[in-house]
Amino acid sequence: MKNIPNTQLDENMLKYLTDNFGEKNVSVSNTDRAAYSRDLWPLSTIWMLHENRMPYPPDAIVWAENEEQIAKLLKLANEKKFPIIAYGAGSGVCGGTLPLYGGVILDIKKMDKIVEINDKSLTVRVQTGIIGQHLEHELNHKGYTMGHFPSSIYCSTVGGYLAARSAGQLSTKYGKIEDMVLSLRVVLADGTIVETTSTPRSATGPNFTQLFVGSEGTLGIITEAVLKIYPLPESRIFRGVLFKDIASGIEAIRRIMRSGVTPAAVRLYDELDTILVGAKKEESVEAPIQYEPEEEKEDLVKKVTHKIFDGLQNILLGMPGVAGKLAESLHGKCLLIITFEGDSKLTETELKIALEECAKAGGEDKGEEPGRRWWENRYNVSYNMSKVFWRGSFTDTIDVAATWDKIEPLYHAVRKAVSPYGLIMAHFSHAYIHGCSIYFTVISRGRSEEDAAKRYKKIWDAALAVCADFGATVSHHHGIGLSKAQWLKKELGGLMDVYRSLKQVLDPNNILNPGKMGLTEEEIDIAALTSKK
Amino acid sequence: MKNIPNTQLDENMLKYLTDNFGEKNVSVSNTDRAAYSRDLWPLSTIWMLHENRMPYPPDAIVWAENEEQIAKLLKLANEKKFPIIAYGAGSGVCGGTLPLYGGVILDIKKMDKIVEINDKSLTVRVQTGIIGQHLEHELNHKGYTMGHFPSSIYCSTVGGYLAARSAGQLSTKYGKIEDMVLSLRVVLADGTIVETTSTPRSATGPNFTQLFVGSEGTLGIITEAVLKIYPLPESRIFRGVLFKDIASGIEAIRRIMRSGVTPAAVRLYDELDTILVGAKKEESVEAPIQYEPEEEKEDLVKKVTHKIFDGLQNILLGMPGVAGKLAESLHGKCLLIITFEGDSKLTETELKIALEECAKAGGEDKGEEPGRRWWENRYNVSYNMSKVFWRGSFTDTIDVAATWDKIEPLYHAVRKAVSPYGLIMAHFSHAYIHGCSIYFTVISRGRSEEDAAKRYKKIWDAALAVCADFGATVSHHHGIGLSKAQWLKKELGGLMDVYRSLKQVLDPNNILNPGKMGLTEEEIDIAALTSKK
Repeated sequence: MKNIPNTQLDENMLKYLTDNFGEKNVSVSNTDRAAYSRDLWPLSTIWMLHENRMPYPPDAIVWAENEEQIAKLLKLANEKKFPIIAYGAGSGVCGGTLPLYGGVILDIKKMDKIVEINDKSLTVRVQTGIIGQHLEHELNHKGYTMGHFPSSIYCSTVGGYLAARSAGQLSTKYGKIEDMVLSLRVVLADGTIVETTSTPRSATGPNFTQLFVGSEGTLGIITEAVLKIYPLPESRIFRGVLFKDIASGIEAIRRIMRSGVTPAAVRLYDELDTILVGAKKEESVEAPIQYEPEEEKEDLVKKVTHKIFDGLQNILLGMPGVAGKLAESLHGKCLLIITFEGDSKLTETELKIALEECAKAGGEDKGEEPGRRWWENRYNVSYNMSKVFWRGSFTDTIDVAATWDKIEPLYHAVRKAVSPYGLIMAHFSHAYIHGCSIYFTVISRGRSEEDAAKRYKKIWDAALAVCADFGATVSHHHGIGLSKAQWLKKELGGLMDVYRSLKQVLDPNNILNPGKMGLTEEEIDIAALTSKK
Repeated sequence: MKNIPNTQLDENMLKYLTDNFGEKNVSVSNTDRAAYSRDLWPLSTIWMLHENRMPYPPDAIVWAENEEQIAKLLKLANEKKFPIIAYGAGSGVCGGTLPLYGGVILDIKKMDKIVEINDKSLTVRVQTGIIGQHLEHELNHKGYTMGHFPSSIYCSTVGGYLAARSAGQLSTKYGKIEDMVLSLRVVLADGTIVETTSTPRSATGPNFTQLFVGSEGTLGIITEAVLKIYPLPESRIFRGVLFKDIASGIEAIRRIMRSGVTPAAVRLYDELDTILVGAKKEESVEAPIQYEPEEEKEDLVKKVTHKIFDGLQNILLGMPGVAGKLAESLHGKCLLIITFEGDSKLTETELKIALEECAKAGGEDKGEEPGRRWWENRYNVSYNMSKVFWRGSFTDTIDVAATWDKIEPLYHAVRKAVSPYGLIMAHFSHAYIHGCSIYFTVISRGRSEEDAAKRYKKIWDAALAVCADFGATVSHHHGIGLSKAQWLKKELGGLMDVYRSLKQVLDPNNILNPGKMGLTEEEIDIAALTSKK
């Protein structure tokens, strides 16, 4: 394990940790410290893959088994002033768990009990360390679903969902994590344990559940939650509809949502993303490339472009079932996937209404196959992203959202702004009656680790500057973490001071996940983090 | 104007107010001060009607025309340390706007502009002083609805909805006010103006919109909001279904919600409330009375009971269209009203599914008439409540909520606890998949103003103690104000300290609506308020 700084933990502290958590639940090994030094933030992957560097390891990792241990730990951390970083399964993509200032990683995956399933109220009380898929699996066994299907479901926890304000692929029907939660138990920085009332709704002052949801470990440690569950759907129906361009596809989604039906998912792929979803492997090279690199020489461009498509092909490799079936008919068109689930009488009526709206927007009904294929492969893309990195390139996804009036111009403006620095494509998902999210995928590479880091930052700055201009949000569901902290400040404006005041009173010693969410005085330049250590 | 304390406003302050707001927008007249000394909190009505007392008048009232005036006012209030109480239309029923410590009432009804209706995004930007019905009326003209129909719609403002966490009669379809709002503009205590991002959703830290929603004027003054709107429904269908008892009616609602349909409204009346909704005037006297008064002598009981029914009859007088039509068939049964609205194909399918669920729970379909009658008379009860007071009695409504597993036992327990102090009936509404609210109506009276105040407090204490035991919320949609402040403390537990900390940093001089929401150190005994002044 090279290039990893030594732990700063002294013997007394180590003894305290082992006394509190038990020896098996404390580690200062360099292997563990390396593993917990990063999440799935692409920049930290660049550090590791380019030069095998893990510049921000924690001093120790502890695995909590109950909230009393957490309360004790926080009390000590306040006394000794060391950072505590709550950690679920590390699937975050914004560097939210990076121990920028060292400290202790508090892993809660051992707190993974399903405390109670309430059949009458359709609720489940869980400890937040449970992996999403494990919970879903157990619920399915009893005839229920949580309806929360982030593509990270196999490697993410309920605590992570709540802390980072997650949204799953069927969010249009089942809501986002903030809609799914009835109540929370939270250990505050001073060790106090609080619980919000478990009721479908109340008019009892500010919503404190929604204060902790999305706080990304900066205001408290979420240890338990009462979540909504639903009967497994009686029917699930799919459809693919093809549109001549992105504008008509967007118009179709807007019309569908406005009609009053509730799809489980609506996803519209732009021309390039449609090809990637549907193309045969060998055809992907002929894709209409937007990539206009600056700086590099022409032969390098070719090399890089080939490298990129090498990576793209690897993504496609992860979706063998999808590839090859639709390519011919899809070139230059945009595919809309729509699914409904629930009572079969209801879903049939809803699909009928939705298809009428699609037809009004010029859509061509392609039957259920494209939709079913998406469903069967819905998690694959995320788990094949890493192959792009192995080929020396990097990729990231930019999840923004806005109201309908802004969606199409926002899409074009972000593409235009980012194109000089990488290949960019997008799909539109998480539809609402009032707008939707745009999920951009960008693939690029740098000539060195530092060059890649600079280019990475340029991509984000270009994209999010456009969002700021449009009054769009800089994150629909990936959260803020470290990577978007400066942009959060811009988005919140004067509310950033409210957040800082809140942080100051709830965590006066700044022990909870310091350096994140723009709460620090100093500006943290994410590109500079690469060269610093 | 007797029994009204003098204004404490000095000449300098008055000059400042008139300079800032203009002479026509400032009043220190006793008539205005009396009018603004109370809202629709029944205890303050008791004070006024029994002895024509208005013990808590403001020192002045100002009518703001823009947020810059508000910002200036708050800066001065911080300097001079006087209370500012934001005021919409005064329809609150919890004493939330009572100027307990004097100060300035900040009426925002002149800030009533519809700034923009966005047809594409289905949003409306409004100043928060607009009356709910005025906004709805304008929207209807353009083919839209906000879908927010509190029974106070004619005498309440958007600002009041947001500040006090309102829910309308069609909340099951259109959501509650927190679901309807995309963004807010807020003037903070120090005069800073902040605005949250107007996006359907974001993962950008804690939800600051939801921090101000429900804060009842204690954390900031909400001046503008972007709200969701919807196309006017193509169809609206109604149904009444009769159940043999409350248990089977509750079971029907639970089944309907679980089936995946989305009613606009579901309302189940208990036996007594069913009679009141449906009975002929002369039959109401024969209602199965639960009233078991303690303390009074038997002849007084008769007198009081007659008085009460005098009041009840007056309520019924307000619903002439409802009375008399259903009485025969309804005795001892419970009426469920259900409505759907939207695309006619969808609503027909949904009604079919809902009626199947009702049949499974033993319901007897009574056709569309009971539902339509409810719709046509849906606001009448509230506006006839005051007649009860004119007869020397008092009435109040207790709006609690819980998950389905608790609903029926909670209903019986609250009824049992309150029955010694008044006549109590209830309906179940605002249904969710996971639970619903219970809306109790209590009618009682005291032998004097002080006796009535004591009895009033006993009723609330009895009801809310039961809620606390059950882990139900003490308010589904009426808010907290002054009357439930002590119970909010119990419900929030350790989170009350979080709220207090928040108040401390956002409003260090406690100028914003002081003495409310349990934020004061001192315990305010609402019954003692009656005898104090």
